[in-house]
Amino acid sequence: MLLKLMTWQEVEGYLGQSRGIIVPIGSTEQHGPNGLIGTDAICPEAIAARAGELGNALVAPTIPIGVAQHHMAFPGTIAWRPTTLIRVVVDTVESLARHGFERIYFLNGHGGNIATVQAAFSEVYGERSLAPADNRPPLRCILRNWWEGDSVARMRKQMFGHAEGMHATASEVAVTQHVYPDAIKQVAMSPTIAPVGRFTDAEDYRRTFPDGRIGSDPTLASPEKGAELLEASARDVADDYAKFIAA
Amino acid sequence: MLLKLMTWQEVEGYLGQSRGIIVPIGSTEQHGPNGLIGTDAICPEAIAARAGELGNALVAPTIPIGVAQHHMAFPGTIAWRPTTLIRVVVDTVESLARHGFERIYFLNGHGGNIATVQAAFSEVYGERSLAPADNRPPLRCILRNWWEGDSVARMRKQMFGHAEGMHATASEVAVTQHVYPDAIKQVAMSPTIAPVGRFTDAEDYRRTFPDGRIGSDPTLASPEKGAELLEASARDVADDYAKFIAA
Amino acid sequence: MLLKLMTWQEVEGYLGQSRGIIVPIGSTEQHGPNGLIGTDAICPEAIAARAGELGNALVAPTIPIGVAQHHMAFPGTIAWRPTTLIRVVVDTVESLARHGFERIYFLNGHGGNIATVQAAFSEVYGERSLAPADNRPPLRCILRNWWEGDSVARMRKQMFGHAEGMHATASEVAVTQHVYPDAIKQVAMSPTIAPVGRFTDAEDYRRTFPDGRIGSDPTLASPEKGAELLEASARDVADDYAKFIAA
Amino acid sequence: MLLKLMTWQEVEGYLGQSRGIIVPIGSTEQHGPNGLIGTDAICPEAIAARAGELGNALVAPTIPIGVAQHHMAFPGTIAWRPTTLIRVVVDTVESLARHGFERIYFLNGHGGNIATVQAAFSEVYGERSLAPADNRPPLRCILRNWWEGDSVARMRKQMFGHAEGMHATASEVAVTQHVYPDAIKQVAMSPTIAPVGRFTDAEDYRRTFPDGRIGSDPTLASPEKGAELLEASARDVADDYAKFIAA
Amino acid sequence: MLLKLMTWQEVEGYLGQSRGIIVPIGSTEQHGPNGLIGTDAICPEAIAARAGELGNALVAPTIPIGVAQHHMAFPGTIAWRPTTLIRVVVDTVESLARHGFERIYFLNGHGGNIATVQAAFSEVYGERSLAPADNRPPLRCILRNWWEGDSVARMRKQMFGHAEGMHATASEVAVTQHVYPDAIKQVAMSPTIAPVGRFTDAEDYRRTFPDGRIGSDPTLASPEKGAELLEASARDVADDYAKFIAA
Amino acid sequence: MLLKLMTWQEVEGYLGQSRGIIVPIGSTEQHGPNGLIGTDAICPEAIAARAGELGNALVAPTIPIGVAQHHMAFPGTIAWRPTTLIRVVVDTVESLARHGFERIYFLNGHGGNIATVQAAFSEVYGERSLAPADNRPPLRCILRNWWEGDSVARMRKQMFGHAEGMHATASEVAVTQHVYPDAIKQVAMSPTIAPVGRFTDAEDYRRTFPDGRIGSDPTLASPEKGAELLEASARDVADDYAKFIAA
Ligand code: NI
Ligand code: NI
Ligand code: NI
Ligand code: NI
Ligand code: NI
Ligand code: NI
Repeated sequence: MLLKLMTWQEVEGYLGQSRGIIVPIGSTEQHGPNGLIGTDAICPEAIAARAGELGNALVAPTIPIGVAQHHMAFPGTIAWRPTTLIRVVVDTVESLARHGFERIYFLNGHGGNIATVQAAFSEVYGERSLAPADNRPPLRCILRNWWEGDSVARMRKQMFGHAEGMHATASEVAVTQHVYPDAIKQVAMSPTIAPVGRFTDAEDYRRTFPDGRIGSDPTLASPEKGAELLEASARDVADDYAKFIAA
Repeated sequence: MLLKLMTWQEVEGYLGQSRGIIVPIGSTEQHGPNGLIGTDAICPEAIAARAGELGNALVAPTIPIGVAQHHMAFPGTIAWRPTTLIRVVVDTVESLARHGFERIYFLNGHGGNIATVQAAFSEVYGERSLAPADNRPPLRCILRNWWEGDSVARMRKQMFGHAEGMHATASEVAVTQHVYPDAIKQVAMSPTIAPVGRFTDAEDYRRTFPDGRIGSDPTLASPEKGAELLEASARDVADDYAKFIAA
Repeated sequence: MLLKLMTWQEVEGYLGQSRGIIVPIGSTEQHGPNGLIGTDAICPEAIAARAGELGNALVAPTIPIGVAQHHMAFPGTIAWRPTTLIRVVVDTVESLARHGFERIYFLNGHGGNIATVQAAFSEVYGERSLAPADNRPPLRCILRNWWEGDSVARMRKQMFGHAEGMHATASEVAVTQHVYPDAIKQVAMSPTIAPVGRFTDAEDYRRTFPDGRIGSDPTLASPEKGAELLEASARDVADDYAKFIAA
Repeated sequence: MLLKLMTWQEVEGYLGQSRGIIVPIGSTEQHGPNGLIGTDAICPEAIAARAGELGNALVAPTIPIGVAQHHMAFPGTIAWRPTTLIRVVVDTVESLARHGFERIYFLNGHGGNIATVQAAFSEVYGERSLAPADNRPPLRCILRNWWEGDSVARMRKQMFGHAEGMHATASEVAVTQHVYPDAIKQVAMSPTIAPVGRFTDAEDYRRTFPDGRIGSDPTLASPEKGAELLEASARDVADDYAKFIAA
Repeated sequence: MLLKLMTWQEVEGYLGQSRGIIVPIGSTEQHGPNGLIGTDAICPEAIAARAGELGNALVAPTIPIGVAQHHMAFPGTIAWRPTTLIRVVVDTVESLARHGFERIYFLNGHGGNIATVQAAFSEVYGERSLAPADNRPPLRCILRNWWEGDSVARMRKQMFGHAEGMHATASEVAVTQHVYPDAIKQVAMSPTIAPVGRFTDAEDYRRTFPDGRIGSDPTLASPEKGAELLEASARDVADDYAKFIAA
Repeated sequence: MLLKLMTWQEVEGYLGQSRGIIVPIGSTEQHGPNGLIGTDAICPEAIAARAGELGNALVAPTIPIGVAQHHMAFPGTIAWRPTTLIRVVVDTVESLARHGFERIYFLNGHGGNIATVQAAFSEVYGERSLAPADNRPPLRCILRNWWEGDSVARMRKQMFGHAEGMHATASEVAVTQHVYPDAIKQVAMSPTIAPVGRFTDAEDYRRTFPDGRIGSDPTLASPEKGAELLEASARDVADDYAKFIAA
């Protein structure tokens, strides 16, 4: 169930049965020579939609941009400051809580968002902790990365081994190839497996990772593998979400 | 050309030929008994995509949430504070400007965003106006509503007359029916044409407009009309954008 | 009735009869070769004072500075960032609401303020829309420009035709000449009617409008015309305000 | 020389001879049974205008509202948060500095503003201190209260002794009576001299100072005394300003 | 009683008897050729600890950094923006108030903090003044500088006369020598007594005060004098705090 | 080398040899029945001091308060909002970078700070990534928790097994007992090992963990164990810091 395709009366009906919602959150940033700039939004959006079907969960619109300052030396990246994203998450959660949602499950597609979204949760909770006690129902937020569930993590390892990498990974490229088969790019890459390492700001990142990848060989991706990964991740998410709203 | 489906090298190539980009911006809010909560994002996203084809323009991901506080008494609405959206727009524009984009064309789907996005443009320009003069290339941002071009405005009037209304309009519902035909809702509405009036906050809005519509009869919508409206608007936008980047 | 010339007991008495107040808001910015830097504050201040007499309305002190970043390439302009003005308007409205004012009528003298003040209203309303429902009385804010009432708009057209222009207009210069006859400046201008066009930041503005005017011939102004314009606008405002507080 | 009554070319000429400017800053707050709500803005505005004549100084528009939260239990008070006023002062100073002003002299009418304006100066300087060294000219800001110069302080003591008080003082009421003789109020007060003490927030203030005054007997005020006080303060200010811009 | 060395149950017990707490606040900034960078935190921390013993007062952890932008041209200085420190003080006070503390006594070690901390108090009070009346207990905050009590001020004068100075004072260096005898530095200084004057930003400060001192001869400091000063100040503080919590 | 015990000339000398610094960061929050409220600041402060000796590293003052909103239902806790701590970290890092520090090593004592401090690093880097390229030297920040180095992690497991727990751990209590032997508390606890689980805001936390501990039996702590843990952690930190500044 996609929130964007529902009417308000349908949401009202949903709230009569459930207090949970999935919010996909991504990024708009370079993903190497054959990865799409939208990869980190496309993956959680597609996986959340499928998990919503499997788990009867409402799915909010995808927040398509995140904390991507380190990719700013590559054209096309859009970066929100962490303090901007905190405000985005706070307002989003407060809106949902106002309607009675009590379990907000952020499905994340970008490692760079994790710290900031967690900080935003503390900002939300903190307002409640500093306020005089009231009788608002408890609110619970979590963030999960689409690639970290047991099944999908195992599958990623089996499919790609250490060529999976850390950025512009083989698996995320595969998922986007499945979702957007017309946008598959054939690009030769050298070295086959990208370097690994740490990074700070945009200049530092580009110096270390000249084509944008970290540790990956995304030429191993295929839309078929992407379909399998998507399904595995969606099942992981649906299971995890079910536990979350039951807690 | 959708930014999300491109690689960074493709964006680099695009920047060699053009300095313009279209950024769709919408809202996630109630749209009456048969209108989708995602209406205001769906319309500019679809129209921008088509305008991008017509005008060889790059199209950024859609900002799917906006200033919708007045719809908060209807479940499913998500509202960002104006100061939050200002930060979102500022960071988005600064990111694009960093890569060399000089003409940022926001295609808007929600009247409630207009003032705030304009204020955000002044915030961006203001930083430049207060800074010592430098040699940065000139940056120009505009906001256009998808429904205000000459052709589409005329068509809306012809198709629906005064039953078009101001919120949950017949035309925006039609566009979403064309884009998501599986999500068409058949709902009886009473009165046929919704009341009109002013509003302030969420309680005030709901008191005055009990089913969410303002002045419209969206049962007149059809996917066929939506297809025509989308095409008309996209042509308006492509023309307007061409003038904008040439200026 | 000017708030600044009243005691708190007099305001208490006023609140026993009325819940409305007029807040003039202007700007401090260049107004071409013969226009005063204070023009945009002087006009709404004088018109609000007169409208207050006509309509028994309380008039707050004028907020004398606004969003004027685009005039910063001309000495004497003072520009508040939009996010600064939002905070100013929010705190001002919240203070007035705390005392029981329920209808806040901003009389504006500067086009550059409109978007930001509207965004500020949404910020104020949004706090209420996101909060749990309470029993606070409804709060309503509007912004009106002094030049847009029916009578004054007609008069401006009659007096100056298209030489009225868009910035450093003949009519606003005339009003200031009436209010401050000792500050009338005689300056030759070339071209007679200033160019028109769009602008972004300060450098861009000055490049396009070298003497600061947009589309106007303010040498047509006279204090007599200013007196007529002030009275016409004040009557428009008094009428409009009466409807506003009755709604 | 009032900035609001000048053209930008006149300001340009002024900047050829001087880099200083006076910025009056006040408050809009209760001033006891016979004091005007605008007292704290009226006094520095009038005194700055006269000091500007005496000292050939440019005088900016008055910032009419300040940090007055402690007066909020009295109707008519408008209070800006300290963080709001900091932004107002920062943007105002940055604008003036952009034009080449290097000595900004805030003439203050309200004790409650002092800390916040000083904090704002540190905010302005701090941006420079944290930035890499550049060749911007030095910027210097000070705040002076209109009542603290040697002559005016002596005169206040002679005229009113300890009945001068700390809020709604005899002298500030006198100055406003001189500036606005038509707004003189005759109100009996009891006790003759108001209590003194400390305060925190609005409720606390009103509990301790039920009619709004602190320590004063403002029935001793007269417009004649006000005229003398204004002149004395203006001379103090003109002298002090001359030293400031020479330093 | 140091808060950091207590358990939460012990604090609960303390709150059964007292609603007051002392919060030391300092700075991390250059203190001339023989003064420690931590001087402004070390002094109030040590004095507050002793005053806490004398007066049975709970003492919070020291806020070790403050508004020190003017010292940024000397290595080792850390400067928080005033708006940052305001947030720090606001959150700290709100936390303490949440537990039932009603008298918050900031013992300050750095003149540059005074304005900002006072502004922060107004920010805290202002939230209460703007909110609808509730039944929260009254909250009172004050800031005292450790060197301004009657006894310690007299002692400083007796010990050092005008060689005490204004920054990197003989007395503050003495206190740190008593607290950290192993960190006493023997450094020749020229001139013996440092210059005095005003300052704005970091470059301006260093130009005027090349070795960092203002008006002082800190070679006169000794740990023995420091011990006496610490004890005198602690007694002043304990007395003042007793009056504060009794009020 | 403690920054607070150095002069600015000594820091200048240090910067001639090294560009690194350790910044301890903690929290002020309940730590169960026998744990000190200052535990999370005391541990990294003491360990950083020792690591500084071992590794010739400069150590900044401890930031003693952090993101502890979830402990606010226990008296004595002080909680800074995440957005407050971000500003604190940003200003601290910018100050140090201004002096030429290029490697900032935050040694953390509180799990609740991790996300927010990481977000703050992205905020710092992001300003650089969004700015036009300049020639500032590269800046690198990391956060390490004192308990996560190989040696100390192994020792914690050996000493306490699963009774170590997650909050008010046996090991952190032990370290504070070593550092402040006079503040050792003997308190019986039931159950011996505290419950484990998730938490959101303050009420939720206290409901689940009634005495404040999570999963730990801190009665197993002893000052002797604390001494060993401190030394092990300091060696881990010194090694890790050496790699960090060499990278
Ligand atoms: Ni990715
Ligand atoms: Ni719509
Ligand atoms: Ni104007
Ligand atoms: Ni006053
Ligand atoms: Ni000091
Ligand atoms: Ni801990």
